[in-house]
Amino acid sequence: MDHEGFTHARTLTVEWGQCDPAGIVFNPRFFDFFDWSTALLCEAATGLPKAGMLARYDLLGIPLVETGARFLKPSRYGDRIEIVSTVVDTGRSSFAVRHRLLNAGALAVEGRERRVWAGRHPDDPTRMKAAPIPEDLVRRFRGE
Amino acid sequence: MDHEGFTHARTLTVEWGQCDPAGIVFNPRFFDFFDWSTALLCEAATGLPKAGMLARYDLLGIPLVETGARFLKPSRYGDRIEIVSTVVDTGRSSFAVRHRLLNAGALAVEGRERRVWAGRHPDDPTRMKAAPIPEDLVRRFRGE
Amino acid sequence: MDHEGFTHARTLTVEWGQCDPAGIVFNPRFFDFFDWSTALLCEAATGLPKAGMLARYDLLGIPLVETGARFLKPSRYGDRIEIVSTVVDTGRSSFAVRHRLLNAGALAVEGRERRVWAGRHPDDPTRMKAAPIPEDLVRRFRGE
Amino acid sequence: MDHEGFTHARTLTVEWGQCDPAGIVFNPRFFDFFDWSTALLCEAATGLPKAGMLARYDLLGIPLVETGARFLKPSRYGDRIEIVSTVVDTGRSSFAVRHRLLNAGALAVEGRERRVWAGRHPDDPTRMKAAPIPEDLVRRFRGE
Repeated sequence: MDHEGFTHARTLTVEWGQCDPAGIVFNPRFFDFFDWSTALLCEAATGLPKAGMLARYDLLGIPLVETGARFLKPSRYGDRIEIVSTVVDTGRSSFAVRHRLLNAGALAVEGRERRVWAGRHPDDPTRMKAAPIPEDLVRRFRGE
Repeated sequence: MDHEGFTHARTLTVEWGQCDPAGIVFNPRFFDFFDWSTALLCEAATGLPKAGMLARYDLLGIPLVETGARFLKPSRYGDRIEIVSTVVDTGRSSFAVRHRLLNAGALAVEGRERRVWAGRHPDDPTRMKAAPIPEDLVRRFRGE
Repeated sequence: MDHEGFTHARTLTVEWGQCDPAGIVFNPRFFDFFDWSTALLCEAATGLPKAGMLARYDLLGIPLVETGARFLKPSRYGDRIEIVSTVVDTGRSSFAVRHRLLNAGALAVEGRERRVWAGRHPDDPTRMKAAPIPEDLVRRFRGE
Repeated sequence: MDHEGFTHARTLTVEWGQCDPAGIVFNPRFFDFFDWSTALLCEAATGLPKAGMLARYDLLGIPLVETGARFLKPSRYGDRIEIVSTVVDTGRSSFAVRHRLLNAGALAVEGRERRVWAGRHPDDPTRMKAAPIPEDLVRRFRGE
């Protein structure tokens, strides 16, 4: 069952180049938004920017294993949107984040993703291998 | 229940600029790939390129209402990948497409999306409104 | 000869997904940055957001006719950069903007672009045609 | 003075998501196109894909130091375009490429870029340092 854990919010303005010939945000751009929102959430939770976080924990990245989104209302360039990102599940070596994108106060997109805490593979340091999330970070993700 | 309907496949090479500092395809790029795969699927099903299809059916677009993907194996720049896209559900004014992205013959990403057949809103031609998918196209999408 | 006209500055943080496998900003992303910097410069000069500006002046856009950049130092994800954009030439229906991208106080990229003030073509409202820049805006661009 | 050296051409179809609300290719996308065209040109000249080329010559990348483009005609989604890329200057540790983008046979964009042959810095293998282009490749770039 989901928990309501660590939360981070940010606002941004939709750019012209993020919109398509229909005049609305081109859907993959929302995943660009969510990816960086998760990076900022991790930065807020660890107190380290993404580069510092990867270096400190010897991670190659925090790759997605699963994601999904429902698109409820279109957004247009110049729109000022808020993205509220919350850790809703924290496992041993993976965690899930829910993103709520609000436009003019209304829910416009809802996304959810699962990411792996990925260190270096012992046999090949350029390849990834799931690693346990540090205990103190697990607690912070769970909002304890 | 899903049907196995109209299918379209294409191959592409992963570009350097589509990969991130971990050396793997940055996840939103898969949704770029899938979006265009669906456009090509519609082109193959209607016999019209996307611009011609939008013009002929007076559509503003075929916006996503829901999408999701599971990421099973990373892909790297230079990798030659195949995307097999299949209409798996066809409704009155929306349809679902499953995308299987294969890398070196193995399933690397599986995505699924639902799109709306979106005409112009009668009160405001710059806004979208769901419209019925033409009967002949419904049959083609269903693989009948 | 160039003038030093209207100036607008903004700061942003380089995102993970804007960097490539070498760990540095993928070069086309700088043109994404500059494009939106010019939009914000025009917004500051006209007092209207881009959508409002296009609507008020019945423009289809302000397309590039020429651009160029020199890349002096790489930028990495997490870097906090400042972009200072200045109108350096204002003609009848086009204007030039210089972008200076500073990273840790040092000039990292210098760009320059020329854009056209593009209204609708009288024979085809979906096509563009250069139009005169309004007089009051010319003066503001020139910093008069 | 420029030479007319090694040439590589490719064709591609403009995608919906590469176009902006004005319905034309968003200008930074042309630099995405050119970047990969240069990668393919190098692949054709060296006989190695980009990953193999970087590995064989122990390069971190071939970063841009300067680029520029003139935009003569807009391109729209669905347009089939050809990009002809030619090495026009070959120095000790850098080279210049000219890109001609043709749409329906007419020159639509002309770009030019200079890139550095960038190995690893001896003091820090994650940082770049210009290295001499191998002699045999210099000759191939020059079209000798």
